[in-house]
Amino acid sequence: MVQKERLGKKQELDKGGIIMTNYTIAVLGAGSWGTALAHLLANKGYQVNLWMRSNIQYNTMVETKENKKYLPGIQLSASLSYHLDIEKALSGAKIILVAVPTQQVRGLLKSCKQFINKDQVIVNVAKGLEQGTHYRISEVVKEELNDQPYAILSGPSHAEEVAKNMPTTVVVASKERGIAEFVQNTFMTDDFRVYTNPDVVGVELGGALKNVIAFGAGIVDGLGFGDNAKAALMTRGIREIARLGSSMGANVYTFAGLSGIGDLIVTCTSMHSRNRRAGILIGQGKSLNETLEEIGMVVEGITTTKVAYELSVKNNIDMPITEQINNVLYGDFNVKEAVINLMTRNKKQEIEEVIAEELIAW
Amino acid sequence: MVQKERLGKKQELDKGGIIMTNYTIAVLGAGSWGTALAHLLANKGYQVNLWMRSNIQYNTMVETKENKKYLPGIQLSASLSYHLDIEKALSGAKIILVAVPTQQVRGLLKSCKQFINKDQVIVNVAKGLEQGTHYRISEVVKEELNDQPYAILSGPSHAEEVAKNMPTTVVVASKERGIAEFVQNTFMTDDFRVYTNPDVVGVELGGALKNVIAFGAGIVDGLGFGDNAKAALMTRGIREIARLGSSMGANVYTFAGLSGIGDLIVTCTSMHSRNRRAGILIGQGKSLNETLEEIGMVVEGITTTKVAYELSVKNNIDMPITEQINNVLYGDFNVKEAVINLMTRNKKQEIEEVIAEELIAW
Repeated sequence: MVQKERLGKKQELDKGGIIMTNYTIAVLGAGSWGTALAHLLANKGYQVNLWMRSNIQYNTMVETKENKKYLPGIQLSASLSYHLDIEKALSGAKIILVAVPTQQVRGLLKSCKQFINKDQVIVNVAKGLEQGTHYRISEVVKEELNDQPYAILSGPSHAEEVAKNMPTTVVVASKERGIAEFVQNTFMTDDFRVYTNPDVVGVELGGALKNVIAFGAGIVDGLGFGDNAKAALMTRGIREIARLGSSMGANVYTFAGLSGIGDLIVTCTSMHSRNRRAGILIGQGKSLNETLEEIGMVVEGITTTKVAYELSVKNNIDMPITEQINNVLYGDFNVKEAVINLMTRNKKQEIEEVIAEELIAW
Repeated sequence: MVQKERLGKKQELDKGGIIMTNYTIAVLGAGSWGTALAHLLANKGYQVNLWMRSNIQYNTMVETKENKKYLPGIQLSASLSYHLDIEKALSGAKIILVAVPTQQVRGLLKSCKQFINKDQVIVNVAKGLEQGTHYRISEVVKEELNDQPYAILSGPSHAEEVAKNMPTTVVVASKERGIAEFVQNTFMTDDFRVYTNPDVVGVELGGALKNVIAFGAGIVDGLGFGDNAKAALMTRGIREIARLGSSMGANVYTFAGLSGIGDLIVTCTSMHSRNRRAGILIGQGKSLNETLEEIGMVVEGITTTKVAYELSVKNNIDMPITEQINNVLYGDFNVKEAVINLMTRNKKQEIEEVIAEELIAW
């Protein structure tokens, strides 16, 4: 019951159904997602310290109360406070929301760990695996901050829609139930519904690996294939993610949830997704270099494909979609060849788990 | 090993990897799906007898080799043979593909059961539950034909795309593995990938109940809510379908497959779906009568909502989305009220199965 000592008794957080909001939350990173969540929390009555690196962005946001670059058109909560000094932003916060890109998380933590005390709850919203180490964010946090209380918040959640109070559901996972419920209480509103889940590994892997499939969905769109092919890719895609996840300690059911298939659906069907847009260009016959040049930003699905493929080999897991996407990106296969390889594999039974349970009788 | 006696040894079906196609298949019903599958099978070399009720349709199809009403623009396989006489269509067929609407299946079987012999394999492609009895199609078939070999073929498969050889995946379920593999061999092509699954109950329920959620997805679109809400509805929707299915003997994993979430994805994102279009009109504030008038055809999701809700009550399963859609359709709730009810329920854990497995440690 470590979380009770850390967070105080549950009754203190939630008296007669009224959630206490008189504590401070630090939000590190003022991209679209960090800004949208800071806005949501400030509107709910918390003292929110939104930290960012850029002087220019800071000056504009203080002046205009708007994040013109990443969340244009949203008038941000008047009570939000903006910070360039990370020590001040972190001071007194019960929750530290980490909202920087995956590859920047370790550096950020290194730069501010001396200001973090052991009771502050890290809530991570980055979705990715660290290059080189292949670590999930919780593993990065553990390496940098040891036993810091940790939760990941994930799910189908375009920042623009959350900022406009459009109905959204997410999942928060933590090894410690008290932490998960504390974060659930903190974030939940009538428009933002938060579910808890104990499966940190599953939620982290789902969020990262879905970008591989979204990239593949883009390829299918770029090839001019139809809705049948795309639904197949998404369904079989989450299956192979679940197989890999299961071998890495995740619960397969998590991939049937909001942070798995839910997030995959949003990413594969939205033009907001850079991963999908990059896939469309590849599907249309552009080279990888041309594609990256045209997108002009990091495409996480492309890096993650390599990591996912390496993990599948290492764990001896059959991931045919990931393998073919990897072939297209790094093995000079053309995309039609890759699709033919997928469609003409040996005949298969659909669900390994069903087969395992029923095969004796079948 | 009943199926071996029925179908002959597996080696007879598949010699050195070459699938035998010199047998006859009867396709009952020349809607878009029946026609597309008849076309696919005829192209593969089978003798296909496509039966239909309508003289007018028959005359046009014989003359034009096109199904102008349900599958316009597709030049059908020259070897397809068209029938008005069901006895002739059924004669000598190894497979009887039943491709009429759910509510017509029983009547059709009654009308032709005297021509069906006990070795012919029924392959059903109707997705629904019989009104009144709440029966799945396999139960209707059992009641009418006793122990007839039976399989259901389902999954994300717009007929128009299949007819154009666009990549498509489906699942075939049968209690008997030999039947499932026989149907898999029969239908599989380089563009049409067939998986087997032993879970008839799960595949049948997924196909029927997804229409309720597609109707709900339409409501969400009609209300002008965003991608987050729709992904949430789909994810939580398939969860509650899985909960009900599980209580009725299905394997929950089936709902994570092609006939579950796969078909749900296609139906919820396509304007081809009457269920979704009806939901959009309701979401925009039209009454049920206005909506039905505007669609002008049967909307299966509307009937199925009532059946699903009744089943949830009977089986004591929590199905909040189905309940709210039922409230909107039959209880005079307005749609915004229904959404508020969904978003402001008690705080929940995400996945019951994960919780059950991990709760002791959590």
